[in-house]
Amino acid sequence: MDLSSFLTSLATSFIIFIILMLLFAWLSGKPGNSVVYYPNRILKGLDPGSKTRNPFTWISEAMSSTEKDILSVSGVDTAVYFVFLATALGILLISGLVLLPVLLPVALTDHGKSGKNGKTTSNGTFSDLDKLSMGNIREKSPRLWVFVFAVYWVSFVTYYLLWKAYNHVSDLRAAALMSPEVKAEQFAILVRDIPAPPDGQTRKEQVDSYFKAIYPDTFYRSMVVTDNKQADKVWTELEGYKKKLAHAEAVFAESKGKGNSEGVRPMNRTGFLGLIGAKVDTIDYCNEKINELIPKLEAEQKVVLSEKQQPSALVFFSSRVTAASAGQNLHSRMVDTWTVVNAPEPCQVIWSNLPKPFYQRQIRQYVVYFIVFLTIVFYMIPIGLVSAFTTLANLKKLLPFIKPVVKKDAIRTVLEAFLPQLALIIFLAMLPKFLLFLSKAEGIPSESHAIRAASGKYFYFSVLNVFIGVTLGGTLFSTLKTIQKSTDTIIPLLASSLPGNATFFLTFVALRFFVGYGLELSRIVPLIIYHLKRKYVCKTEAELKEAWTPGDLNYGTRFPADMLILTIVFCYSVIAPIIIPFGVIYFGLGWLVLRNQALKVFVPSYESNGQMWPHIHTRMVAALLLFQVTMFGYFGVNKFIYAPVIIPLPICSLIFAFVCSKKFYRFFHDTALEIAMKELKEVPNMEVVFKSYIPPPLGGEKPAVAHSEDALSQISRSVASV
Amino acid sequence: MDLSSFLTSLATSFIIFIILMLLFAWLSGKPGNSVVYYPNRILKGLDPGSKTRNPFTWISEAMSSTEKDILSVSGVDTAVYFVFLATALGILLISGLVLLPVLLPVALTDHGKSGKNGKTTSNGTFSDLDKLSMGNIREKSPRLWVFVFAVYWVSFVTYYLLWKAYNHVSDLRAAALMSPEVKAEQFAILVRDIPAPPDGQTRKEQVDSYFKAIYPDTFYRSMVVTDNKQADKVWTELEGYKKKLAHAEAVFAESKGKGNSEGVRPMNRTGFLGLIGAKVDTIDYCNEKINELIPKLEAEQKVVLSEKQQPSALVFFSSRVTAASAGQNLHSRMVDTWTVVNAPEPCQVIWSNLPKPFYQRQIRQYVVYFIVFLTIVFYMIPIGLVSAFTTLANLKKLLPFIKPVVKKDAIRTVLEAFLPQLALIIFLAMLPKFLLFLSKAEGIPSESHAIRAASGKYFYFSVLNVFIGVTLGGTLFSTLKTIQKSTDTIIPLLASSLPGNATFFLTFVALRFFVGYGLELSRIVPLIIYHLKRKYVCKTEAELKEAWTPGDLNYGTRFPADMLILTIVFCYSVIAPIIIPFGVIYFGLGWLVLRNQALKVFVPSYESNGQMWPHIHTRMVAALLLFQVTMFGYFGVNKFIYAPVIIPLPICSLIFAFVCSKKFYRFFHDTALEIAMKELKEVPNMEVVFKSYIPPPLGGEKPAVAHSEDALSQISRSVASV
Repeated sequence: MDLSSFLTSLATSFIIFIILMLLFAWLSGKPGNSVVYYPNRILKGLDPGSKTRNPFTWISEAMSSTEKDILSVSGVDTAVYFVFLATALGILLISGLVLLPVLLPVALTDHGKSGKNGKTTSNGTFSDLDKLSMGNIREKSPRLWVFVFAVYWVSFVTYYLLWKAYNHVSDLRAAALMSPEVKAEQFAILVRDIPAPPDGQTRKEQVDSYFKAIYPDTFYRSMVVTDNKQADKVWTELEGYKKKLAHAEAVFAESKGKGNSEGVRPMNRTGFLGLIGAKVDTIDYCNEKINELIPKLEAEQKVVLSEKQQPSALVFFSSRVTAASAGQNLHSRMVDTWTVVNAPEPCQVIWSNLPKPFYQRQIRQYVVYFIVFLTIVFYMIPIGLVSAFTTLANLKKLLPFIKPVVKKDAIRTVLEAFLPQLALIIFLAMLPKFLLFLSKAEGIPSESHAIRAASGKYFYFSVLNVFIGVTLGGTLFSTLKTIQKSTDTIIPLLASSLPGNATFFLTFVALRFFVGYGLELSRIVPLIIYHLKRKYVCKTEAELKEAWTPGDLNYGTRFPADMLILTIVFCYSVIAPIIIPFGVIYFGLGWLVLRNQALKVFVPSYESNGQMWPHIHTRMVAALLLFQVTMFGYFGVNKFIYAPVIIPLPICSLIFAFVCSKKFYRFFHDTALEIAMKELKEVPNMEVVFKSYIPPPLGGEKPAVAHSEDALSQISRSVASV
Repeated sequence: MDLSSFLTSLATSFIIFIILMLLFAWLSGKPGNSVVYYPNRILKGLDPGSKTRNPFTWISEAMSSTEKDILSVSGVDTAVYFVFLATALGILLISGLVLLPVLLPVALTDHGKSGKNGKTTSNGTFSDLDKLSMGNIREKSPRLWVFVFAVYWVSFVTYYLLWKAYNHVSDLRAAALMSPEVKAEQFAILVRDIPAPPDGQTRKEQVDSYFKAIYPDTFYRSMVVTDNKQADKVWTELEGYKKKLAHAEAVFAESKGKGNSEGVRPMNRTGFLGLIGAKVDTIDYCNEKINELIPKLEAEQKVVLSEKQQPSALVFFSSRVTAASAGQNLHSRMVDTWTVVNAPEPCQVIWSNLPKPFYQRQIRQYVVYFIVFLTIVFYMIPIGLVSAFTTLANLKKLLPFIKPVVKKDAIRTVLEAFLPQLALIIFLAMLPKFLLFLSKAEGIPSESHAIRAASGKYFYFSVLNVFIGVTLGGTLFSTLKTIQKSTDTIIPLLASSLPGNATFFLTFVALRFFVGYGLELSRIVPLIIYHLKRKYVCKTEAELKEAWTPGDLNYGTRFPADMLILTIVFCYSVIAPIIIPFGVIYFGLGWLVLRNQALKVFVPSYESNGQMWPHIHTRMVAALLLFQVTMFGYFGVNKFIYAPVIIPLPICSLIFAFVCSKKFYRFFHDTALEIAMKELKEVPNMEVVFKSYIPPPLGGEKPAVAHSEDALSQISRSVASV
């Protein structure tokens, strides 16, 4: 790839972005689309927002929004995600301000290896950008000292900003935890691994007497976890019929309106997927089923409460301090019984994981780690095998009926280009779900925790495979023989293959930010899906709402992707500093676009009060460490004898990580009592707190969306009026 | 060493033991010696014990004593030490009962390598014992399967007994912690790393308001830790003069009795060590000094309390549950401030360590670990250098005046034999103190914890140096060339050099138990010291009591020595099972002798409620692991192709250690609330609890010996009357 083709690709991406942005400005102005572009505001009962056709209004709105707005509209987790984006942006900006004016002239005015093939920063003849990189410096040149200084500069900027960010996030978490609002999860703890009750005591009596003895003043009551599988099933079925009934009634009403005064009563088949079986009147059938299922559910509820009690319970306290303290204390002298954790929010409890026994959870964890390890390291093997089998030639043999299709040249070309990648594409699309499934299988009790665990796994996958894989992969086979002779560790190999892939990653980052964020902002796909559903599927208000209700920010997968970019930019920041502006645009644009989305589109589905941050922090330090180690190797490749001057940096990073984790980490796991003791604005209504944890199949209200909506809308209204 | 010389050495040791035992029976019967042989009983106000001249009475008394007796007389820590001895004894007994009748015939009836020089179990011609060992089995012989079975047997016996022991110790600890007696340390927590107080608040107000807000109902009061160095110094001086005055008055009174009715007033010099300076009348001088120091101490106490407050405090609660819970909770959101631990007993607080800041403690810890590492690995280098310099020839040059002494043949021979070892002997004698000093320098807040830490370091030193050092050392130099060619790991090397040292260790163990325990039982050295002091030094009752007051069991150094023996016996148990009876005698005799000493002699100086056990447990599992790995290597040396059949065992050991630590460990660190909530027999007098923590220089009572004595004597009296 030479400079002009790189610029062409860049320009194309930019034009796509401009088009998508204009599209966004046009489409979001149409009233019919406001549920797609302002769902978060609509759900909170706010005005959908500005109707100007100015395509840059959203930018000024995003820029002028404060962290307080984000907190009130989208919660602490989202605010923490913006702290991450801002920190990454800050690191790259401050690094770039020094590195670009210093390193570029130093590199440009040397004539080290330009022209020679061995050490160029690109595989081809990309010589113009090449002159701006460290590859242009002669071996052993004293100019390398400037690059050493650059590594130190980037490192210390990172330490400083990460330290500030951790402090800030800790403040955010503390503010959220000491808020005077009554939050149900702050008055409860989750108890697991309860031993068998003594004879003549029910599970409930056992739990009550145990905790009442220890906390005589503040114990409120307990809720024994039950096996709801059967009740869940009946309840889901019942809800399905209710929806179907509403749909059928809407269809019936509609048909009445269309001239036919009697209307056409909708019919359906009772068999598999509505395709086979007897044809029945849908409205009657659903009513009948509902009348049948309601007593069944009630009977099942009674059975569940009396007979299906599990060795796990939620215990409620009337004091926030006691609950925070109880969640940290050792209760039983056998540490593997009566284990306690802070209760998750009602909406994010993974009920089926609660009764899993202590050692089973441990074993599950290690098994899952092992599976993830295999997946990360060897995923190419099954995919390679599948690819080998799904060639056109094989398919023609297996599925003779596709032969006529394949004969057409155009289709064959597409298929031939596409088929080998198919398995990989499907795999990559399924991976986040698979990792989340694995994380839940570990026995983790809350949704947010499972998402954090999955996100960590995804981070390792992407960094190891995309970054190290692409970097090494290209070099590995061509230098297989050289390795055995001269180098014997992976660091010099990684370091020496870095520059060769600089342009690949430049293009990769540019594509990510222009096309990725363009699509994100314009919401083309959700828009199309919504309009299709509205036209052909949805009949009732509830169905329509379901069609446009957006997901959450989904930062379980978003964050690893950002981290991958950050890792890449870190590693190239000194070798080819021209990558820094690209990183700045990525995080700057990301901040802008997601600010818009967070304010107007996404609805958070849970609140973990920033528990993601320690993970983010650790991985940013890990990325920095990878950068430092790589640079050490790269200075070695350049035969710079003062390369060991880099060695203090990785040690600094380890000490920095250690100090941060000692200073901040435990507060992200436990609630500090000085925070929990802050006064509440009202005496908590414990009955409400208790009821919020009853799962819907057992007669509880729907997941606390309604509740949190009210609370949030109150706040946001007060903010809006400020 | 051949069989006969081994038997001679064994017989000699045994005869020494018999003589020491008879000496003990004779000496302990004399009334004048009862303070040496029954000090623990005397301090508790009990009858010194049986006066029969039967030399075996002590054995029957030790055998018939129960764990309850030990608990009441010597506390939980001593009882836990006996659990260790009994467990080790049990493992060796049950292993031996199967291994001896099975392995010895199998080994004896094979004729593998006897006669050949390469693989004998001794370096010389020790061929009789040789036939009883695994060295007599031919390579690749199917008989090796029996030895594989033996390894499994020893391992599973160990798991079973260790599991039972951990459970039992956990029971002991729980019983002690839930005792209805009021123990001061159960109502207090130790707070460290308190941030600077806000303006206009004293340190005390800051601490009080902080904890009162969190624990409004149960907070009693706080005690800010002060810098007592100056007050300590004055107080020590004062106490010294008080003692000196009492001594001088006793001398004066004595001189009056001796005909001279006026008496001779004792005189002393005021200068360095009483050797120089003006001569003064001691009684007047001391009185004068005391009168001078008392107001000085009082002034200093006021200064200390008002101005020398440190960022650390003891906080007292009126409820045992709250104190137990507070010791585990996170209080501040910055984890490195307001750190809490359970308060140690008043007598074992290391006051000077309390104000050390958080990160300083971490750094100190790592520095200490590094120093210990250097000490363990390289201690031979400085000692070798010192030895090289302290040859007779060098000494003659440096100190010419010793020349005439050295000329005498007898003295020269002794010096020549002794001098090279001198540095090593001094080093080994100082090592435990040095390790304790290092452990205290880590910033550990309590004496018992520091002793545990020092004991761990001593364990690593002895196992690595004595066991691996002796085993490898002998082989290492002779096989230095072989290593480079054939073996490339340490395990086969360790394994193949084991049998060659079997006889060395047999003699070592035998010497340890007969001579070591004989000296322990007979207390010859303390007896002589006591009688010398009584005759020439002590004049007052207090001085006399100080002369015979025994130390504690001192298991900080005792336990690593036992562990060394256990490790040796483990490792040889299958290779040369004849070592097992020696191990059984060591632990059996140790149990008997120490039972006698614990009941009658030693006075425990602190009580940690069995917190030593997790360390003991882990190290026993580590010894087992070393045994399993060594056996794997040894089967390899014997070219037994089924050697990998041993591999599951080390994995089992790791899982066993993991499960035990998960199940039991935290209770040895924190107090479980279900234990702390047990009812007390009386409402605690918080004023007494608070006062027990006032250090003597600040006007507190003498270290809680008096207090604990009362408590203990009450218990022991009630037990004695049972």
